[in-house]
Amino acid sequence: MINVAVLGYGTIGAGVVQVLQTNADSIEQKAGDKIVVKHILDLRDFPGDPNQDLVVHDYKIIEEDEDVNIVVECMGGVEPAHTFVKTALLQGRSVATSNKELVAKYGAELIGIAKEKKCNFLFEASVGGGIPIIRPLTQCLTADVIEEISGILNGTTNYMLTKMEEEGCDFDEVLKEAQEKGYAELHPEADIEGYDACRKIAILTSLAYGKQLDFEDIHTEGITGISAEDFLYARKMKKCIKLLGKSWTDGRGHLYAMVCPMLIDDHHPLAGVKDVFNAIFVHGNMVDDTMFYGRGAGKLPTASAVAADVVDCVKHMGTHIKMIWEPDKLELSDFGGFERKYFVRMGEEVSLEEIEKAFGPVSVIEVENVKEKAFVTGVMKESGYHKAADKFDNIRSMIRIDE
Amino acid sequence: MINVAVLGYGTIGAGVVQVLQTNADSIEQKAGDKIVVKHILDLRDFPGDPNQDLVVHDYKIIEEDEDVNIVVECMGGVEPAHTFVKTALLQGRSVATSNKELVAKYGAELIGIAKEKKCNFLFEASVGGGIPIIRPLTQCLTADVIEEISGILNGTTNYMLTKMEEEGCDFDEVLKEAQEKGYAELHPEADIEGYDACRKIAILTSLAYGKQLDFEDIHTEGITGISAEDFLYARKMKKCIKLLGKSWTDGRGHLYAMVCPMLIDDHHPLAGVKDVFNAIFVHGNMVDDTMFYGRGAGKLPTASAVAADVVDCVKHMGTHIKMIWEPDKLELSDFGGFERKYFVRMGEEVSLEEIEKAFGPVSVIEVENVKEKAFVTGVMKESGYHKAADKFDNIRSMIRIDE
Repeated sequence: MINVAVLGYGTIGAGVVQVLQTNADSIEQKAGDKIVVKHILDLRDFPGDPNQDLVVHDYKIIEEDEDVNIVVECMGGVEPAHTFVKTALLQGRSVATSNKELVAKYGAELIGIAKEKKCNFLFEASVGGGIPIIRPLTQCLTADVIEEISGILNGTTNYMLTKMEEEGCDFDEVLKEAQEKGYAELHPEADIEGYDACRKIAILTSLAYGKQLDFEDIHTEGITGISAEDFLYARKMKKCIKLLGKSWTDGRGHLYAMVCPMLIDDHHPLAGVKDVFNAIFVHGNMVDDTMFYGRGAGKLPTASAVAADVVDCVKHMGTHIKMIWEPDKLELSDFGGFERKYFVRMGEEVSLEEIEKAFGPVSVIEVENVKEKAFVTGVMKESGYHKAADKFDNIRSMIRIDE
Repeated sequence: MINVAVLGYGTIGAGVVQVLQTNADSIEQKAGDKIVVKHILDLRDFPGDPNQDLVVHDYKIIEEDEDVNIVVECMGGVEPAHTFVKTALLQGRSVATSNKELVAKYGAELIGIAKEKKCNFLFEASVGGGIPIIRPLTQCLTADVIEEISGILNGTTNYMLTKMEEEGCDFDEVLKEAQEKGYAELHPEADIEGYDACRKIAILTSLAYGKQLDFEDIHTEGITGISAEDFLYARKMKKCIKLLGKSWTDGRGHLYAMVCPMLIDDHHPLAGVKDVFNAIFVHGNMVDDTMFYGRGAGKLPTASAVAADVVDCVKHMGTHIKMIWEPDKLELSDFGGFERKYFVRMGEEVSLEEIEKAFGPVSVIEVENVKEKAFVTGVMKESGYHKAADKFDNIRSMIRIDE
């Protein structure tokens, strides 16, 4: 029998307990051992909850209970999650977590401790919720050199962009609706400013290259500047607008990463990813294009991934599953150096001659009832785009084009 | 240093050698050891090939070379592949294979031997080519009870159906074109009759439920009956036609499996899977919908998956990665018992009254320039459909609707 302690009895923690209890028989068969939730750590009490007797308020009880084999961390945030997880790993206990902040910041350290202590630190749920992506990346695509990861990594913003696209509504309107439906939080900055996606692409990129990519180094833009008009142009260009977390190599030894809204072709596999669904597109030098799709958030999908990590911890009791993520810093190339096309909207008072003098030859895009100058540049460096754009004080929006 | 013997130097075997040699540095980092191809078994010689000196014609040389650690099987077919693989596993050598016939027939036996001998029998490439699906199913979705697997599992037929949909051409025409392009074989039965997809859904279903599903038990229909007109109706219904390998439970203890063309909604994630791409849609009771997308065939994508299995064998030298696939037979429920809707086309001489007398209330579908009766039935059992259809001798086509 394997005893699990769950830290945090919020949405995900309660989901993990529910998954482990609901699917107990099938999980026991796959794990090869019975898995029992012994403690639940939370500051609150849960009178009436079927697991109310398992709730403890002091981590020491879990730390000192020698029968605990596996710790599940669903508290979120860096502290005290980091202290508790580190303590557990140093005791030789395996840990499964859904906590992207913790993994993005301390992934390399915690994997290192798990390796030393012959246990495991698993975090499938920290990126893409229920979507299997961490194992595919670290165990299935190991014969490839990864050349691109592009992910729709945040369900809230994908829901909002889908609504804007399908119903033609504007940002503020759709944010309000998402908040009413519980898809967006009252303080939605982490989602709409791209901070959530930033942590996730940092984790995926660190795993793809085996070194620590600090999320602070990633150029991050959210979707607050996207308007209903942008979708009119997108439609005209047979493209759609997605918030992508993206890292890629250019074949000349450069590695780039960013989070920003991008225009992608209607035929791109990511274009069909609607509503709160997430997907991660990975291109390897041998496997070519792959994509992993599913629910990137939500109680049970996320809990399913955490519980599957618990199963893997049971199957590998006493052995460490090799995962390369060294603490050495992964250096990104200068963000200004990459070349792409840009979609730009500016006031109609500027002439095409002035525009082309600054940006070089452009393709003008027109949509009905919008009076302005809108165009797609040729392929140019990010630094070149900004140099040209700085000459104008009436740029309404710029969206990068992913090709 | 790890020595690998590759059995079969055809497309996939040569691809595996190419992947291991091209990405040698990155693979060594991930595997934690240098991987060297020591022998290549083939009946042919390959004068001028950079690896010509590695070619041997007698398996005994590999069997008796004590330095060989891992055997890669890319010969295809059941024999002699089965004998060679079994011999290697009994010697305690791990095996990676791309051979779906071998895995579908002997998966349970070979996993059993690997378990006993503390080595591994891995076959990620046998389903979905380069798409990671075996590990996601056996290691990531282990906390779920799998309720549905629906796969576009054959690239040739998906290419053909995509062409028919986009260009309006007929089956024979598109088959000829696919053969000229090398996407379809001269003897294309394995693809177009669904036999290839049948082996693959048998493997996935066996892994999902941990028992042996015999592929002979799976109701299998190909795409030879699909015509250009069917796509006109599909368009009208906002659906597309895909050859699906499918297994599912109905929540009342029944398990079904089949391979056949189906009408799926334009918004289904599988609908966007075009050309030679494959995808596997998996629904679990906790994780909800997931999908895995990529190149289901082709030299390097398939070889990438085999080589990643080799990396996993190296990482797990001396330990067995637990995978449940017992030899007990997985029994399917009677195929006639499942309920769904059917799209039916028949001669225009039949009246709607006669049709509804047999099938119950139907929705008539009309497209321009096709003079016939076409309709969608209500939800009815497969056996009920056939009982009704048997009353008519002028049914032109029937396609099941996936909802």
